Formats: sequence, C-alpha cells, structure tokens
Amino acid sequence: MTTRMTVSELEAYLDEVFPQLHIGGRTYFVEEVGLMTARMRCDYHEKHLRPGGTISGPTMMALADLALYAAILAQIGPVALAVTTSLNFNFLRKPGKAALIGEARLLKLGKRLAVGEVALFSQGEREMVAHATGTYSIPAER
Amino acid sequence: MTTRMTVSELEAYLDEVFPQLHIGGRTYFVEEVGLMTARMRCDYHEKHLRPGGTISGPTMMALADLALYAAILAQIGPVALAVTTSLNFNFLRKPGKAALIGEARLLKLGKRLAVGEVALFSQGEREMVAHATGTYSIPAER
Amino acid sequence: MTTRMTVSELEAYLDEVFPQLHIGGRTYFVEEVGLMTARMRCDYHEKHLRPGGTISGPTMMALADLALYAAILAQIGPVALAVTTSLNFNFLRKPGKAALIGEARLLKLGKRLAVGEVALFSQGEREMVAHATGTYSIPAER
Amino acid sequence: MTTRMTVSELEAYLDEVFPQLHIGGRTYFVEEVGLMTARMRCDYHEKHLRPGGTISGPTMMALADLALYAAILAQIGPVALAVTTSLNFNFLRKPGKAALIGEARLLKLGKRLAVGEVALFSQGEREMVAHATGTYSIPAER
Repeated sequence: MTTRMTVSELEAYLDEVFPQLHIGGRTYFVEEVGLMTARMRCDYHEKHLRPGGTISGPTMMALADLALYAAILAQIGPVALAVTTSLNFNFLRKPGKAALIGEARLLKLGKRLAVGEVALFSQGEREMVAHATGTYSIPAER
Repeated sequence: MTTRMTVSELEAYLDEVFPQLHIGGRTYFVEEVGLMTARMRCDYHEKHLRPGGTISGPTMMALADLALYAAILAQIGPVALAVTTSLNFNFLRKPGKAALIGEARLLKLGKRLAVGEVALFSQGEREMVAHATGTYSIPAER
Repeated sequence: MTTRMTVSELEAYLDEVFPQLHIGGRTYFVEEVGLMTARMRCDYHEKHLRPGGTISGPTMMALADLALYAAILAQIGPVALAVTTSLNFNFLRKPGKAALIGEARLLKLGKRLAVGEVALFSQGEREMVAHATGTYSIPAER
Repeated sequence: MTTRMTVSELEAYLDEVFPQLHIGGRTYFVEEVGLMTARMRCDYHEKHLRPGGTISGPTMMALADLALYAAILAQIGPVALAVTTSLNFNFLRKPGKAALIGEARLLKLGKRLAVGEVALFSQGEREMVAHATGTYSIPAER
C-alpha cells in the first residue's frame, strides 16, 4: 500500500492551491509523506516572527493545517478538494529561532470526513511547541 | 465602567507586538472596543487570497486571535501580556471578495485565564463565515 | 417557516434514542425549540453532583450535546440520524445548586454538516458556566 | 523519576472526588500510570449504552476527562485540585460491545496549566474510536 502523491507532486499541488503562502519568500516545504502521515517544515523567516524572535501563532496554525491537508491528499490524490471544517490548537511552548516541523497523522480517513492530529516542534528539539487536531470534509464526487 | 485602552491605543500596541502582520501592506484594523468586546477588520488584499477569490484560513485565524486579544487588552490594559493557550475554529462558509469582520466577546475574564468567542463575517453580510473560541493565560505579575 | 418537530415530539424521540440518560431518574427536558435554536434543561439531581454541590463535567457535556442535537432534529425531523463528529468545551465557572440550562443555536445547517454553539447557565443566573461548539454529520440518505 | 501516586492511591482519590461516577455500578478503573501517562478503563455496562449496543458520547467524554485528570494527579499528587478548563473531542468510529480504554498522555505540565491528549479504543481493538485534548488549570497554592 502506497501513497497516491509523492513529496514533489504534493509540493507542486500546494503551490498551485495556496500560492499566497509564498508571498515574501518560500518557507513551507513537504519533507515526507507516508501511510496516513505527512511531515512539513516551515523555515525560520522574518515574515513569521514576533518581537523576541518567537514564531507567530498564525504561522504555526498555517503549518498544522497544511500538514494535515498534505496527509489527506497523499492518500486520496489531487482530484479531491478537501475543505477544512474545524481546527483545534493547544499552544504549549514558545518556539525558538529555528524552523518549525509539523508531523501530521490521520486518525480517520472516511468517505466524507477525515480527522487528524499534528504535533509541532522546533527543528532539532524534542518538546512539542503546539498540538492541533483538524477535521476535513471530502467531496462526494471524487 | 469603561475600557482601559482606546481603539487608537490598541492599534498602536498591536503594531508594536505583532509587526509581522503588516508585512506586504496594513490590513488589520481595530474598529471598536467595548465592555468585554472588540471588533476588528481585515481588509481584502491579495496576500490573504486563495485561488477563486476566497480568503485563506490562516488569515481568518489570525483575525480571530487578534480580535480576542484586543478584547482582553481593552479590559486589562497593555501592561499585561496575555498568551494564547488554545484556539478552536469552525469554518462555516467560504468568505467572499470583501473585508472580513471579527466580533469578539469575552465569556470570562478571570485573574489568570480569559475565554472568549469570535464570530467572523464578510463585511456587509449576515451569515457567519467562521466561529472561534479561544483561551488566554494572563500573567500573575500585573 | 416553522420547525419540523415540537417539544413533545422531540422529547419522545430523545427518550427513544438516548434511554440511558434517564437511568436513576428523568432529569433532561426540552424546554423550547425555535428556528435554528433549542433550549434544554437538566434538573439538579444527586446523580449529577460532585462533592461540594457542583454539577459534574459529563452532565454539562451531555446537556450541550443533547441541546445541539435537539436543535438539529427540530429543523430536519426525526428521520435523519445526525451523528456528533466533534465537540469543544470551555468550562467557565462552577455551576451552583440549581438546574442547568443549555441554549443551543445552529451556526450552519448544511446538507451534510451542521455546526452549532451552546451556552450553559445555572437556572436563573446570567453568567455562563460553560460554552460548547459541536459539529454533526448528517446522513445523505434522508 | 517516578509518579507521586500509585494506581490504587489514584483510584481511592477518584472515588472520593467523583463518587457519582459509580452510581448504578462501578465501571471506571485506573489500569496503569506512568511518567506523564495514565490508562483508564470503562467497563461495558447497560448504563453506558445507546440503542444498538454502542457506548454513549458522555461515557466516552467522562473517560477521557478522567484519564487526563489521573495522568496529572499521578505527577503532582492529590493535594492539588486541577480543574478542567477546556476539552475537545473528535468522534471517529462507533465503539462496539466492549470495555473502553483511555490512554492519556500529558503534552505539557506547567506550574499553572497542564495540557494532554487521550486516545480512546475499544478493548482489544487497534482503531481509535475517539480522540480528545484537554487543558487543566492547576492551583497556585500547592
């Protein structure tokens, strides 16, 4: 059993549907996809910072949503347009001056609904900086 | 009973602590603050768009978080640094080509914890496009 | 425009699908339904208490879920079996020795997904004791 | 590094603070505690059922909350009274006719705030039936 999209296919597709992510410099990258999983990275960049050198909440939220979306697309392919229906975040620690890693895992991939969780880490660190869960509606007509 | 910060004081403070929001053009504005409430606006701008003209999830999430944060600061003043501890979003409808309005209302403002909800609308429309709740930790040393 | 189920029809239906709620004594009642809204009550009863006289979290969570469910059924009728897909709770204050009221309001009633929020109060009090949002999957075959 | 409460100490403490859980028969048990973790079980019992033999949402929610609470108490001891401030649930599959297992893991245990996640399973099954995250306020005066 394999995924339906490779890392490079996923990146090309995300570029197409989320071009605004790259305004001011490309920082979001797909690192790896697997069975019901995806890992994405957001590079440390001025546009994501808050004073003090920590990374903004919206940057973390965007990364979590993207990583879950990538995990779903990797399983079902690019024809299906999944739509985020809900997201829940717990912010645990301030991320430091480093890239942010989002490790997404799908908990359910149904015909109409996908649910997953994401752990966010500062690159090279072991302590989670934020945790998210998300639900995605999958169109019937795929 | 009045708020401790005016709209212009709040905007100046948010500019200082969230300068990265304005990269590529200023689009987030405080419209009004009241007792346990705040209304913020995010102008329609290329940097917030997804293909098809709809506004991106992270833009909506940033607006909701900011509006709750503004509602808290308006009550407790700028000396206290509230930190977002959790956020929950339900995405209801695709926002159209218009500014986005976030109407925040605090449900609880305790000594250590504030909780609020936000309704997001496209400007001039009556149907909610997204709903959020958030919890914020308030430092003891204020 | 009216609801498809009356208060007494709803109560009869909830009795049928959630009989375990009434073990040890009937305490959950539908008080009112309206357009996209429902109000339910949970009477103060020994089985819902925690030491100190406050009402348990699971009792509040059950009331919130039921009130949202009732609001959905009132709109779409008893033929459709809606299933709770997610619930988010913020606990704001300890409820006192009184019945608990749940005021549910649907934020979206789509063909496949309903989303709503519930405010929980101690009967006769103005301050919210808990707030919940929920999403419900609606079967296609209705 | 060890936990501050054993399984039997935790059960005795939970009996004391949540006696209403056992009305109609004892079904909630602590199975194991570890560093930042706890596993609890809810036995299959008539009082938790819905028609069709599935286990009710409030039963799952109570188990998740209890398991997180047990994980916190195991770390900080029974003197501190942690209070649930928020809970988020995703319901993934209908649990079958079996005991329910809740595996809790703390993501953060700060001085004032604890955050954790719980995976719920039907005993002996590998697929998660529900996932929850929760935040708990920890009193300063311990």
